[in-house]
Parts: sequence; C-alpha cells; structure tokens
Amino acid sequence: MRMADVRTVPQPADFADVRATNLAVVLRHVRTAAPCSRADIAASTGLNKATVSSLVAELIERRMLRETGLTENRIGRPATMLVIDGSGYAGIGLAIGPDHLTAIAVDLAGRRILTWRRSFTAPGKPPGRVIAELARLARRAAARVEAAAGSVVGLTVAVPGLVDPAGVVCRSAVLDWHDVEVRAPLERALGGPDYPVGVDNDATLGALAEYRYGAHAGASDLVYLTGEAAVGVGLISGGVPVRGARGFAGELGHLCVDPSGPRCSCGHTGCLDAAAGVDALLRRTGDAPPDARGARDLLARDVEVADLVRRAAAGEERVRSAIDEVGIRLGYAVALLANLLDPQVILLGGQYAALGRWLLPAVQRAHRSLSVAPDTHRPLIATSNLGYEAGALGGAAVVLDAVDSARVAFARSA
Amino acid sequence: MRMADVRTVPQPADFADVRATNLAVVLRHVRTAAPCSRADIAASTGLNKATVSSLVAELIERRMLRETGLTENRIGRPATMLVIDGSGYAGIGLAIGPDHLTAIAVDLAGRRILTWRRSFTAPGKPPGRVIAELARLARRAAARVEAAAGSVVGLTVAVPGLVDPAGVVCRSAVLDWHDVEVRAPLERALGGPDYPVGVDNDATLGALAEYRYGAHAGASDLVYLTGEAAVGVGLISGGVPVRGARGFAGELGHLCVDPSGPRCSCGHTGCLDAAAGVDALLRRTGDAPPDARGARDLLARDVEVADLVRRAAAGEERVRSAIDEVGIRLGYAVALLANLLDPQVILLGGQYAALGRWLLPAVQRAHRSLSVAPDTHRPLIATSNLGYEAGALGGAAVVLDAVDSARVAFARSA
Repeated sequence: MRMADVRTVPQPADFADVRATNLAVVLRHVRTAAPCSRADIAASTGLNKATVSSLVAELIERRMLRETGLTENRIGRPATMLVIDGSGYAGIGLAIGPDHLTAIAVDLAGRRILTWRRSFTAPGKPPGRVIAELARLARRAAARVEAAAGSVVGLTVAVPGLVDPAGVVCRSAVLDWHDVEVRAPLERALGGPDYPVGVDNDATLGALAEYRYGAHAGASDLVYLTGEAAVGVGLISGGVPVRGARGFAGELGHLCVDPSGPRCSCGHTGCLDAAAGVDALLRRTGDAPPDARGARDLLARDVEVADLVRRAAAGEERVRSAIDEVGIRLGYAVALLANLLDPQVILLGGQYAALGRWLLPAVQRAHRSLSVAPDTHRPLIATSNLGYEAGALGGAAVVLDAVDSARVAFARSA
Repeated sequence: MRMADVRTVPQPADFADVRATNLAVVLRHVRTAAPCSRADIAASTGLNKATVSSLVAELIERRMLRETGLTENRIGRPATMLVIDGSGYAGIGLAIGPDHLTAIAVDLAGRRILTWRRSFTAPGKPPGRVIAELARLARRAAARVEAAAGSVVGLTVAVPGLVDPAGVVCRSAVLDWHDVEVRAPLERALGGPDYPVGVDNDATLGALAEYRYGAHAGASDLVYLTGEAAVGVGLISGGVPVRGARGFAGELGHLCVDPSGPRCSCGHTGCLDAAAGVDALLRRTGDAPPDARGARDLLARDVEVADLVRRAAAGEERVRSAIDEVGIRLGYAVALLANLLDPQVILLGGQYAALGRWLLPAVQRAHRSLSVAPDTHRPLIATSNLGYEAGALGGAAVVLDAVDSARVAFARSA
C-alpha cells in the first residue's frame, strides 16, 4: 500500500500537481456529501468521469475512501456509494512541556487512539536525550496505531519556542535551547519513517487543536494563549494558522503589561511572561523562590496550581487579589490581541484554565476598558477545555488537517 | 454583456457554486500559462473539454479572456490560443482622508487608468455630504473608465476606522463617525450600479496595495502602518488580508508605547496615536495647538510635514530629537508586530515615509532591542513608496484581487 505522503501546498496552489489537488477535491467533496457515487462527484466537481474513477481508485487503495455497497434511490443503474474511511489513518502529536512529554494519536475520522502523558523534565537535559525520549515515545505510539490496523499519516512535535520550517528550534526560553535541530535527528532516530515528521510551535498547535476539536471549533478567527511556564500565542485567521514568514509568529511574552512590574529575564520590566505568567502568579502567592523557573521541579507546578485553586476557593484574600492582578495584566494583552486581530474568541489555555473562575473576570474587565470595538462586537474571552493536551492534539490535527483540506497535496503517484 | 459580479467565497470553498470556482480556475490557469489552448486547459486542470469550452466562452464573453489567433507548434490540428484580456475591466478605489479624497482606477492587467486627489475636509462635515462627494467622484471615475473602453468591475472605499462587512463605519476617530452607513447610501447615490460597491479599512487596503503593487509586492506576510492623523495597521498573512471576525482587525492606536507620555483622547496616556502619530510629532516640533487634530485645517499637515523635513535636513536639533523619540515609540509598536506576526516586511506609510531618513534608524534601533527573533531572522523595516495613494490603490486592487485569484466566485450565470 502506498502511504499518503502529505505536504502543504504554497498559496496560490501549484498547478503542476493537479492530480494531488484533485485528490483533495474529491476527498473533501465526499467528506461533505457522503454517501455519494462517482457520477455524483463528477457532476459536482466538473471533473470528467474517467478522472474521477482513477482518483477514487487511488483513494480507496490508500484507504481514504471506501465503498459502502449502498445504492441511492435513483432512476437507472444502481451506483456504488462512497464514504470517508478515516480509520486507516492516524496523525500523531507529541509535545515537549517543561515537566512532561505528551503523545496523542487521532484518526482521520476524529477518533482518539491514544493519550499518554509522562513526567519528563526537559529543561537542563541535553537536547539529544530529549530527542531520544521523543523517538521512544513516537515508536510506541506508532506501534499502537499500527496495532489498531491503521497507518501513521504524519507526526508533529509541539515545542514551546521559535521553530523554523526546517524543524530547528531557534530559541526556547523554557527549554533553554538555541538552534537545536529536532526534525532531522528525530527522523534518524525513527529510522527514516515513511511518514512526514514536523516540528511546530506549541501555541500555534494549541490554536489548531482548538480550531478543530475545542468548544469553539470552527471559529475562523481564534486566538489561543498558552498558560504554562511562559505565555505563547497561537493565531488562526480565516481558518488558517498565522505562522509568519519564518514560522516565528506568536511571541508576545515581552510585551510590557506593567511598567512598574517585576524584572524579566530579558532585562526589561513588566513583560507579560514576568508579570502575568503562571510562574509569576506562583511567585506572588507562594513558596517558590523568585527565579526558580528553570530549576524548580516543574511537575510541582500542577500541584502548586491545584493548591492555589483550593486557596482561592477557600476565599484566601492574598491569593484572590494576586490572581486578580495577574488577570488585569493578562487582560491588557488580551485587549491588544482583540484590537489588533478581531478574533471571534480568545482562549486561555494550560494552567490559566484551572484558574478561570477568578482569573477570567479580571481579564474581561481589563479587556472591556481597553477595547476599541463597540460593546456588542467584542470577542468572547473564555478558558480552554483542552488542558495540557492542546499542543499534542494540535500536532495530530495539523497532519489530518492537511490531508483533509484543499491545502494538501498527495505525493505524486508512483 | 454580463458583468463580472464578484464576491469572496468563504473558506473552505463552497462546492455549491462549482461553476464559479471553475471559472476562476480557468482564469488563473491562463494567467500563469498563457498563451494556451482549450485542450491545454482541459489537460492541466482535469476539467472535461466540454466544460472548459463552456467556461472559456463565458470568459471571452465577459472579456476576461481573448483569442490571440496564434497556434502552437504542434502535431495535428492547429489550436486557437487564449490570453488574459484585462484591459476591459477596471477596479476603482476611493479613499477618504482627513484632508482629501482620492480616486484611482486600475485595470485587470495592472495599468493605471486614473489618479485623482482633491482637497476635501471630511471631519466635521455631515456624513451625507461626504458620501455625496464620494458619489460624484465615483461617477466621474466610472465615466473615465468607460470612455477608455472598459467596464467597472467593482469599487471600494477606504475609510480610516472600523468598517463592518456591510459597509457601515462603526467608529472612525479621524472622521468622528459612529455607525455611519456608507455602502448602502453610496450605492443609492450611484443609482444602483451593476458593479459591487465595498467599504474597507484604509490600513487593510494599504497593505493590499503594498502586496500587489509595492516595492515588496508578493511578500506573503506583510504589515503596513498608516502614518496620517492616526496610526492604523494593515496585515497580510500567507498572502491573505487579516480582517478579523467582524472586519475590525488592525487597531493598535491605543497600545501604550510610553507610560509617561502624552494623554490620549481615549483617556489613557502614552498611546501609540498620541505618542507616535504624525500629529504628535507636529505638536512636539511646532506650532500646532496641542489638541488640534479635529479642528486644524488638515491639508496644512502636508505643508507642515514638508517643513519638518526641511528643518530636519538643515540639522535642527529640536526636530531631529523629536523625530528620534517618535521613532523609538513607533519602534516599540513595530517590534511588537514583528514578534507577534513575524512578517517579511513592515512598511511605514503615509507621512512617515517622508520622514524615513531620520525616523527609520530610531524605529530599527528600538525594534532590534525588543525583537525575540535571532538577528538574521528579523523582518525588514522600510518606508512605503505608495505615499497617499495606498488606500485608494488598495481599494482598486481588492476587486481585481478577487477576480484574479481562486478566492473568487463569478455570479451564477443567468
């Protein structure tokens, strides 16, 4: 069986690979109109019947479509009907967090095949060890997908940092990485897999996960804020991720949200990361040493946030007012994003979500006071319900998204 | 002759209007491969020959394509070759500035048909008078296009403010407008024209003009800053304008760029508009009363900026340091946009361009100090060379862009 080797087509579409485009057109048509016959596809797409038959044969061979055997109520010969057969294909997403690795696999029909999370403190470890660990996880996930009678259609790793299109992590403050190649050594460690391997920014992938699976799925203009060690921004505009010219879009951590605020690792004061990140909140309310980001056992952050939620729920004034202040700073950034990008929804992800009951009102208050849009035309500000899964889920989604949409090309048939 | 009534198709494309999509596919194919025959089109697109013949006939009738009579060097029957016939179609752009109205018409082949600018102080006038004046200008421009043996394919008005998809100006600080319908009354004043009339944000249209006609045309990720009465932001991401969910994207005027800066009309201090707008610079260096934005005879701004350029060129220290300070504030906003959106290029438009020699170094300095991207991966910061024409030129381009790309649908054939 040939693999569905997918890649993203540059816009505007490259007419050289018309067959690839037409494969995607047929696939997308069946997705919206299934069950349908070959003749229906020809009539609806304007492609000629011989072309449609050949495209459908290839898609059946690739297990993207299957015949149901059903026939429509029609005059004339009964026709074989086609439906999407997503079960044979799965995308795998991996995520490197400050204190964990996550793996998720989802098939083309949207079914979750696996969700794994394991404790792993990447910051401070040599990149080679982290990549070896990713490879181990990827091999296990791929084996599980194959055991479920499917093939892996692609794998994407979510990393908190600037990732270039070649899969090099140019900078990651969380991991303390500079110019670390991830894609190439991961591919080598996987023995040159027959599916594409990608590396992408965790916030961008989080936004993609929200766009495809979240409570506001399908919102064409969507902003997702990560709330882990630092604040990352993932952007969807017109249904398409905003990656920027070099893949570096989404950095807002050094926006000054509090001129008299705490000093940031970048040398400036009152940056979003330093004044409104989850770590900043933990420093304000608790026991963590003031410069502990890199050094602290980071799995402890989950425990600390849970403790904070308990104290806020118990009405502890110090905690509530700290969350409120962080919310106002975060709200400044949210208002800026709302004014600049006019999304339908802005989602607070990661550990912000757990704090939503107290955080959200402050964020919304600050947003209202700084919004330039009329009252009735402001984006919804809400907490994400994808939790720590967002990055890895987006990693699985990015591959399926490419297969599923017209922004796809199949490898030229051999 | 039927008119090419164009509209933008939502993403993902609506399969219901397959003929419209296929018209655009054929048009785009001829644009890239001309001269080519009907058989070439069928072979390259996978559309069947009868469909291609019918599509080509419609495009010839609409004067989007024409037969050249040339034949290719080929075995078998000679074929009639097709090329784009853009000369029959022109887009018209109008712009409402604080002190002028501009009209520009450009044909589908990119030739400028007319460029008019007339002094007109819109702020303070009833919207009805402004719209009547726009209608007068539009009628004259349409007559000129028709005299040049073409038809108007669409008209778009650039307005400094928040414009919704229905063509209502929800807010414009420059014009002091709230919820002013522009499209509907303009269409009425034009007697229900047989081309579509649109209204859009001036910065978004400026970005489109840069993307299509500017010195960095084709840069898929591009930011354009207006430098007139206020600072507006136009965004192109992946070759597509970022308009947001309600068309309100691009507002950055109330970003705080100087916590100890001047008070803004919004009530906060140190906003981008108040601290780094062209008016702010004129207030710092000159003779304009401190709160003169709305009241001052605004044509005077051109004269004042020219005077400022002269004084800076003569080495006047007060002027140079004022431009430098404004540049640092503006550079803060530029760095924010660079970090968040990672464009290839950020262009300073309007009157910023005239001041570029002194303004640009300060902007670049501030950008460098705040950029999170590696040195070699930063966007180019440059001045626009479209001058005051950017908004109107973008208004003409937006219509042609829709005709020209796959993001188009032709009206269902009657």
